Amino acid sequence: MTPVAAANPQTVAILGATGAVGQELLALLKERAFPIKELRLLASPRSAGALLPWQGQNLEVQPVSAAALQGVDLLLASAGGSVSRQWAPLAVEQGAVVIDNSSAFRLDPEVPLVVPEVNPQAALQHKGIIANPNCTTILLSLVLAPLAARRPLKRVIVSTYQSASGAGARAMEELRELSSTVLAGGEPVSEVLPYSLAFNLFLHNSALQANGYCEEELKMLNETRKIMGLSNLCLSATCVRVPVLRAHSEAVNLEFEQPFPVQEARELLAAAPGLELIEDFAANRFPMPSDVTGRDAVAVGRIRQDLSNPNALELWLCGDQIRKGAALNAIQIAELLQGIGR
Amino acid sequence: MTPVAAANPQTVAILGATGAVGQELLALLKERAFPIKELRLLASPRSAGALLPWQGQNLEVQPVSAAALQGVDLLLASAGGSVSRQWAPLAVEQGAVVIDNSSAFRLDPEVPLVVPEVNPQAALQHKGIIANPNCTTILLSLVLAPLAARRPLKRVIVSTYQSASGAGARAMEELRELSSTVLAGGEPVSEVLPYSLAFNLFLHNSALQANGYCEEELKMLNETRKIMGLSNLCLSATCVRVPVLRAHSEAVNLEFEQPFPVQEARELLAAAPGLELIEDFAANRFPMPSDVTGRDAVAVGRIRQDLSNPNALELWLCGDQIRKGAALNAIQIAELLQGIGR
Repeated sequence: MTPVAAANPQTVAILGATGAVGQELLALLKERAFPIKELRLLASPRSAGALLPWQGQNLEVQPVSAAALQGVDLLLASAGGSVSRQWAPLAVEQGAVVIDNSSAFRLDPEVPLVVPEVNPQAALQHKGIIANPNCTTILLSLVLAPLAARRPLKRVIVSTYQSASGAGARAMEELRELSSTVLAGGEPVSEVLPYSLAFNLFLHNSALQANGYCEEELKMLNETRKIMGLSNLCLSATCVRVPVLRAHSEAVNLEFEQPFPVQEARELLAAAPGLELIEDFAANRFPMPSDVTGRDAVAVGRIRQDLSNPNALELWLCGDQIRKGAALNAIQIAELLQGIGR
Repeated sequence: MTPVAAANPQTVAILGATGAVGQELLALLKERAFPIKELRLLASPRSAGALLPWQGQNLEVQPVSAAALQGVDLLLASAGGSVSRQWAPLAVEQGAVVIDNSSAFRLDPEVPLVVPEVNPQAALQHKGIIANPNCTTILLSLVLAPLAARRPLKRVIVSTYQSASGAGARAMEELRELSSTVLAGGEPVSEVLPYSLAFNLFLHNSALQANGYCEEELKMLNETRKIMGLSNLCLSATCVRVPVLRAHSEAVNLEFEQPFPVQEARELLAAAPGLELIEDFAANRFPMPSDVTGRDAVAVGRIRQDLSNPNALELWLCGDQIRKGAALNAIQIAELLQGIGR
């Protein structure tokens, strides 16, 4: 595959248009006035046929096919790993650049894994496919990057508080339905998620590896290393699904090679792109999912010296999982390719 | 104050009988057939007057007073720190042993801070007051103790997922009400908790100290040190309130002085008193709040070698906040004094 120039995309397709991320991609293309000649909405045959509003008309979601991908300049894929593995290479062969939200290509050494605020230069090295990282990893990398640029980062210990949206629109709906069931005194029985999330929580149910970590936790390790170009970074994650609709939170312990003054870290984070400092110690007010829902910025706060290690900091972050954790990051990559990054 | 023998308590009083913990104390006294001649239910004047069922009759909750405490052998206090500071010393002067669920006396060097599975011997050294630890600390100590007894424990990093019950029965009710509001499309406005917990979460809102930690987090540090007799233990906590009704969860990273084989840790925890191993890697099944709600055992699982440190383990625990996190632990202390500990 030869590098494909992405300048001036004319025809944009969303694969997985009916999903939670697909719908957000559509909203962001409009909101950010992304330059589009033609927009195609694609999905698996099962989800095709739906009508979605675009520029005053209703666009019908088409089943994905080689023909439907012909002439596509930019494919925004968000329909899962197996769908991406099937269609992304074909789209590239036919001349498209693919920004893929699945995990299919993220660790492929030929595929850049990009968070525009962190490693924008990587996007320009693509050979047709650019991978959009895991949602928790994107949010975390925004906080790690400005600090690691100042002092060598050694080890990260992170516990996540992940919303239902990470499991898709149907999981969000199930959380609402089963919460109603519990409030009415009934017994919640889950069908989308493995267990009821209504007033409950559970360790992330992605496949477990022999080392006892789940895939989601290892994505945080491996993807963070790749995005930040720190192949020896130590990171241990515990990923937890919580009864929140669409924003993830993370409790992060950061160990550096040497002490990192809290005020310096605070100033770096407050000035970093994509981040918003929400930190009012007098009012005991720090980031919450409700602060970031539907918003672009990732909120960070309660930065403090770790009492248990002179070289470590503790902090807390929240970000919209569908937006910066997925759709916004993909659109920002597309803007980067267009030279219209903000 | 001279040590007060606690053998054979005849008259038991619950101070704070109408609260979430008070009600659970009442249920546990019955369930465990605690030997009682007379039971008195006490509360602040505001909460007095309520009728609670006990042994086929309705007992009226009396306003706490010196007279109401006369003749009490065992006072189970769970009405907050200021109430305990006011009444516990008087109850002791009048001959009672006080098991206090507030934070008022926990760090007093004259007052034992007891988790019966961990430091039962401390209870017998009391001078009238025995403190019941913070709920997150009790749950954590059950897991730390058997491991620290095998190999020196160096540092703990813990992130909590704390239920509404930790803020009392009214906070639980508010979570239910505001969840209904959100499901109906309304805007949740909190009155009991500082922010709405409905499909939301926030850092624990206890008072912040100059070091950036909140009181709840520092309780975990200081109380764990005292219970375990490890005055130099390093511990950093991030405490988070989540939309769960009455069970706390904790993601725990444990660093030892040397490597701790996972299988050895698993066997120690599986055999430890008060703990239940819920750990099925084949079925991806680990502890959840719904597993422990209304139950005595603290569930632990997903014990794994920390990928980021050869001397560290990661694990996950859930425990009923009202039960082992508060009322059950207090009753177990009372049983210990009676020589009827199980």
